[in-house]
Amino acid sequence: MTIQASDTRPVADDNGRPAEARQGAAPPHVEFRTDPGRYRHWRLAVNGPVATLTMDVDEQGGLVPGYELKLNSYDLGVDIELYDAVQRLRFEHPEVKAVVVTSGNEKVFCAGANIRMLAGSAHSWKVNFCKFTNETRNGIEDASANSGQVYVAALNGSAAGGGFELALACEQILLVDDRSSVVSLPELPLLGVLPGTGGLTRVTDKRHVRRDLADYFSTRSEGIGGKKAVAWRLVDEAVPRVRWDEVVAERVHAVASSSSRLAGGGAVELTMLGKARTEDSIRYSHVSAKLDRERAVAEITVTGPSSDAPSSMDEAYAQGAAFWPLAVARELDDLILDLRTNETEIGTWVLKTAGDPARVLAHDQLLLANCDVDWLAREIVLYWKRTLKRLDVTSRSLIALVEPGSCFAGSLLELALAADRSFMLFGVFEDGDPHAAPAGVTVGTANLGPLPMGNGLTRLATRFFGDPDALAAVEQLSGKTLLAQGAERLGLVTFTPDDIDWAEEVRIAIEERASFSPDALTGLEANYRFAGPETIETKIFGRLTAWQNWIFYRPNASGPDGALRAYGTGRRADFDRKRV
Amino acid sequence: MTIQASDTRPVADDNGRPAEARQGAAPPHVEFRTDPGRYRHWRLAVNGPVATLTMDVDEQGGLVPGYELKLNSYDLGVDIELYDAVQRLRFEHPEVKAVVVTSGNEKVFCAGANIRMLAGSAHSWKVNFCKFTNETRNGIEDASANSGQVYVAALNGSAAGGGFELALACEQILLVDDRSSVVSLPELPLLGVLPGTGGLTRVTDKRHVRRDLADYFSTRSEGIGGKKAVAWRLVDEAVPRVRWDEVVAERVHAVASSSSRLAGGGAVELTMLGKARTEDSIRYSHVSAKLDRERAVAEITVTGPSSDAPSSMDEAYAQGAAFWPLAVARELDDLILDLRTNETEIGTWVLKTAGDPARVLAHDQLLLANCDVDWLAREIVLYWKRTLKRLDVTSRSLIALVEPGSCFAGSLLELALAADRSFMLFGVFEDGDPHAAPAGVTVGTANLGPLPMGNGLTRLATRFFGDPDALAAVEQLSGKTLLAQGAERLGLVTFTPDDIDWAEEVRIAIEERASFSPDALTGLEANYRFAGPETIETKIFGRLTAWQNWIFYRPNASGPDGALRAYGTGRRADFDRKRV
Repeated sequence: MTIQASDTRPVADDNGRPAEARQGAAPPHVEFRTDPGRYRHWRLAVNGPVATLTMDVDEQGGLVPGYELKLNSYDLGVDIELYDAVQRLRFEHPEVKAVVVTSGNEKVFCAGANIRMLAGSAHSWKVNFCKFTNETRNGIEDASANSGQVYVAALNGSAAGGGFELALACEQILLVDDRSSVVSLPELPLLGVLPGTGGLTRVTDKRHVRRDLADYFSTRSEGIGGKKAVAWRLVDEAVPRVRWDEVVAERVHAVASSSSRLAGGGAVELTMLGKARTEDSIRYSHVSAKLDRERAVAEITVTGPSSDAPSSMDEAYAQGAAFWPLAVARELDDLILDLRTNETEIGTWVLKTAGDPARVLAHDQLLLANCDVDWLAREIVLYWKRTLKRLDVTSRSLIALVEPGSCFAGSLLELALAADRSFMLFGVFEDGDPHAAPAGVTVGTANLGPLPMGNGLTRLATRFFGDPDALAAVEQLSGKTLLAQGAERLGLVTFTPDDIDWAEEVRIAIEERASFSPDALTGLEANYRFAGPETIETKIFGRLTAWQNWIFYRPNASGPDGALRAYGTGRRADFDRKRV
Repeated sequence: MTIQASDTRPVADDNGRPAEARQGAAPPHVEFRTDPGRYRHWRLAVNGPVATLTMDVDEQGGLVPGYELKLNSYDLGVDIELYDAVQRLRFEHPEVKAVVVTSGNEKVFCAGANIRMLAGSAHSWKVNFCKFTNETRNGIEDASANSGQVYVAALNGSAAGGGFELALACEQILLVDDRSSVVSLPELPLLGVLPGTGGLTRVTDKRHVRRDLADYFSTRSEGIGGKKAVAWRLVDEAVPRVRWDEVVAERVHAVASSSSRLAGGGAVELTMLGKARTEDSIRYSHVSAKLDRERAVAEITVTGPSSDAPSSMDEAYAQGAAFWPLAVARELDDLILDLRTNETEIGTWVLKTAGDPARVLAHDQLLLANCDVDWLAREIVLYWKRTLKRLDVTSRSLIALVEPGSCFAGSLLELALAADRSFMLFGVFEDGDPHAAPAGVTVGTANLGPLPMGNGLTRLATRFFGDPDALAAVEQLSGKTLLAQGAERLGLVTFTPDDIDWAEEVRIAIEERASFSPDALTGLEANYRFAGPETIETKIFGRLTAWQNWIFYRPNASGPDGALRAYGTGRRADFDRKRV
C-alpha cells in the first residue's frame, strides 16, 4: 500500500459509463521485451548457486503518468521486469538453485500494487494487470517445483497486499522479527477489494492457514508479525534482525543444496527478440499475426522448424536462443502478452500453423528424451507448458484452422487443443494445388503428459473429460497422421467442411463471435476450458479472479465514492450496504 | 426464453447508478412457505413409486408485476413451488422412487428464466434468484444420488436456457424427437449472459460434452435436437412422439426398480411452519432472529430439543414434523431464505445456540444409527446437510458466539464451524450466574462425515485442510465437552475472550464487519469458506456464478443498450467490444 495519495484524478472507465469514461489517460502501448540492463525496479545478482532478486522500485518509474511508486509498490512495468528476471534465471543462469527475493528499501519489502495506479486504471487494465501478475507468480512456483530454482522470500521489512502475495508464491517465507515488520492483506479493509493475485487461495490452500484466522488476518489492515505470524502459518520463520543475514544465508544454502536442478550445457542467452510491429501486423521469426480491426480478428500463424532437429542437445545449446522450440515459445509468449494488453478490441484469435510436422515431432522428441537429464530440455518444455497455459486463460475466442500445409503435430497440436473450436479442411482447396497433401493432425508424445493445463490434466484429457475410451482411442494413434475424417471421428477437431463450405463456415464462425457480448464470451470460455478438477492455480484464475473482477467493477470499489477512490483522500468510502 | 417482450421499462438497479436506480419496482417481500394446494405453476401427481412433476406455468402468476410468464418461463415464485414439491416428495411420499419432470405446455418444456423479469430486476435480485435456483437443482441431484428418488427429465417439448439446466440436474434426459423440439442454451447469443444456473458446468463436468461442441452448442440459439443431441451427450435419448409415453414409462419404471430408497415408517406431513414475523424479529418454535437494522446484524438463536430424544425411529415418526431435528432444519432453512431475500442490508448474522447439548447429541445419534436403514432418518440428515450448505453459500458474514448455556454440539456445532469467525467465552459472565457452567463445545459423530460441505469435505476437514494432525486431534476428542482453553488450542474456535473483554471484542468484530465493503466481504467469504478441492457443486457456486455475477453487472448485459434490455425490442444490443 502506498501511503502517499495526492493524486485524486478520476478513475478511467472503459465501459461506457457516461460521466467518467473519458477522463482517465489512455493506456499506453506496452512492450514486454526488456533485459536487466534496462531494469529500473529490480536488481538481479548471481553468486554461484544463489541468485538474489532485489526489489528497489524507482518511484518515478511508473509505466503511466499520474502516480508515484512509493514504498516499493508496483505497477505493470515493475512486474514486467520481474517476469523477465525469472525467465532469464531459468535460461541464462543454469547454475542457480535458489533465488532470494528481497527488498532494497529500508522500510518495507513491498507495499503491493500501487493504489493510485489501480484507482486510475480502466477495468480492463486492472484485470489484465492482475492476470499477468498471477502468471508470473505461477511461473515462480513452477520454477521452485520443476526447475530446481527454489524461491525464498526474505522479507526484510513489511509485506502488504500484493507484496505478501509475491511472498506467498515462494516456497519459504522468512520475516524479520523487529516488532514493526508484518505481513498483511489490507485490501479488504482499506480498499474494498480482494487480495486478488492469489492471496486468498494460497493462504488457505497452500499455506493451510485456518479459514477463521485467515478471515481475521484479511480484515485487519495492521497485519501480523513475529511469532504469531509463524503460529498462524503466514510465514515460516520470524528472524531477529541481528541474525537475519546469517539465517537467510543458512536457509538459502539448505534449499540450494537439496535442489533438483538438472545438469547440462552452459547458459543460453535470451537475446533481444526480433519483432516488427506495424499498425496491422506483428512479425517475429516463426510467429506472425495479421490484425484485422474491422472484423476484430487476429490471424496468428506459427511456423514449424525450418531445418531438421539437432541430433543432440549439444547442437541445441550451440543454436542457443535460435533453437526452434525456444525461439517459437518466446515469440508466442510475447505475442500473447502484446495482443492481450494492447489489442483489447480484437476479440478472436485465429490460430494457424505452417511447416513440416515431422520436424516438429523430431524437435519434441529431442526435448522429451532429455527433459529428465538436461536442464535446457526441461526448461524449454516447461516454457511451452507455461505459454500454453497463458493461452488457456486468455480472454479471447480461439479458433484453430487446420488446412493443407499446416503443421498441427505434437507441441503445435496443443494450439488446436487449446482452441474453443477448430475447423479442418476435408480434402484440399480446389483453387489451390489439387495435388497438395490434405490437411493432417498428429498426436505426439508432447500431447500425452508433459504440457498439462492448470487443472493438472493434459489438454486431451480435459477435452475427453469423463470419456476415457475416447481418450484412449486418441492416445493409441499417437504418431499417426490423421486426415479430416479420422480426426473428426476421434473428436480431435470440431468441424471438417470441404472446400465448398470452408470459407463460408469459417467466415460465419468468426463474424458470429464478433457479434456476441465480449463479457459473456469471456465467462463462457473461462468455464468450458476448465472441465474437471481444480487446482490452486485454476482456483486463482477461476473462483478468486472472477469474484475480484466483479468487485473491481462495482461502485463500492471503483465508483466515485468507492473505497479505491476514497483511499488516501481522508474521505470515507460510501458503500451501498446491500449484500448481493 | 419468452418471445413476447412488450414490457420495456427500465432495469432497476440497486447499486446507486444515478439515472435508472429508482425506476424499477421495489422487490416484494417474499415468503418461501407454500404447499401444493397453493401451487399456481406445478402439478404434483403420485402414482405408486412414480411421481410426476408437471410444469404448467400460469402466465399471469408472476411474483412481481411487469412480466408474463409465457411459454413455461419461470421466476422466483415458480422456483419456490418446485423447491416445495421436491421437499414434500422426500418426506410426504416415502414410496416414491422415481420422479418425472415434464411439461403441461403443449409447445415447450420450459423456456427458462423469464427475460423480462431478469431485465427488470435489480442485480441483487438476479443473483439471489439464481442462487436459490441452483440450490434447488442441487437438491434434485441430492435426491437422485442419496434419497433413492431419482429424477428423469421428460422433455416433451423444447427446453431452453434454465429449462435445459433443470433437465441437466436430472439423472436422465429424454427428449421428444419430432423435428422441432430441441435443447438449447441461448443465453449467450440472445441475452449476452451465461447459462448461469449450472448449465456450463454440468454440460462438461456431468454430461461430459466435449468442450468445443459445448462451445458451439452454447453460441447457437436454435438449439440441437434428435440424434445429434444424443451423439453430443446433451440428452440420453431422443424418442419419437408415437413411442413417447411408452418409452418414458419404461425408463421411469427401470429407474424406480433399481432405486435405493430406504424402507421405514409412513409419510411425514410437512405441516405449515409456524412463523411470527415483525419488523425486527422472526420467530419459529426452535429458531428465532432479532434484526438490528441500525447495526446491520441479525442475531439468530437456534434452540436444542426441549425433551429427550425418542428411543426409536417409531417415536420419531409419531412426532412427525414436530420431531426436533426435522422441525429445526425446516425453521433454519426458511429463516436463511427469508433473510437472504428480504433483508439484504443485514450483512452480518450472529449465530447463537441454547439448550442441552446432550439432547442434541442423542437426537443426532438416533438419526445416524438409522440413516442407512430408515428413510426418515436419512432424509433428515440429508436435509441438515443441504441447509448447512445453504449457509455456506450465503453472502453474509457469519459470526458464532459460544456462551454459557449455549448448545454447540454435534449437528449444532456445524453452525459454529460454518461461521467465518467464532468467539467463545472463557469462564462465565461475572454479572450472570457465577456458578453457571462455562461454555463448552462438543464434537460429535455428526461432525465427522454425514454433513459434508459442497466441496465433499466435512467442515472440520475444510477447517483443518492440509493439517491432518490437527484434524485427527479434534476427531479423537469426539464426545468430550471442551471448554474455551481446549477448544481454542484445538482450533475449534477463533477467539476466547473472558468476561472483561467479551462485550468489547464482539462489538468491535460486528461493527468492523458493517464498516467494510459488502462486495469485498462476499468475495472474501466465498473464497475462504471453500478451501481445498472443488466439485461440480462448488464450481457452480464459485467459477460459474462469480463470472455470471460480473457479466450480469456489466453494461453489455444490463446497461440501457445491453443485450438483456434490448431483447425482444427489435433493437440490437450495443456492445463495448473490449475484452477484459
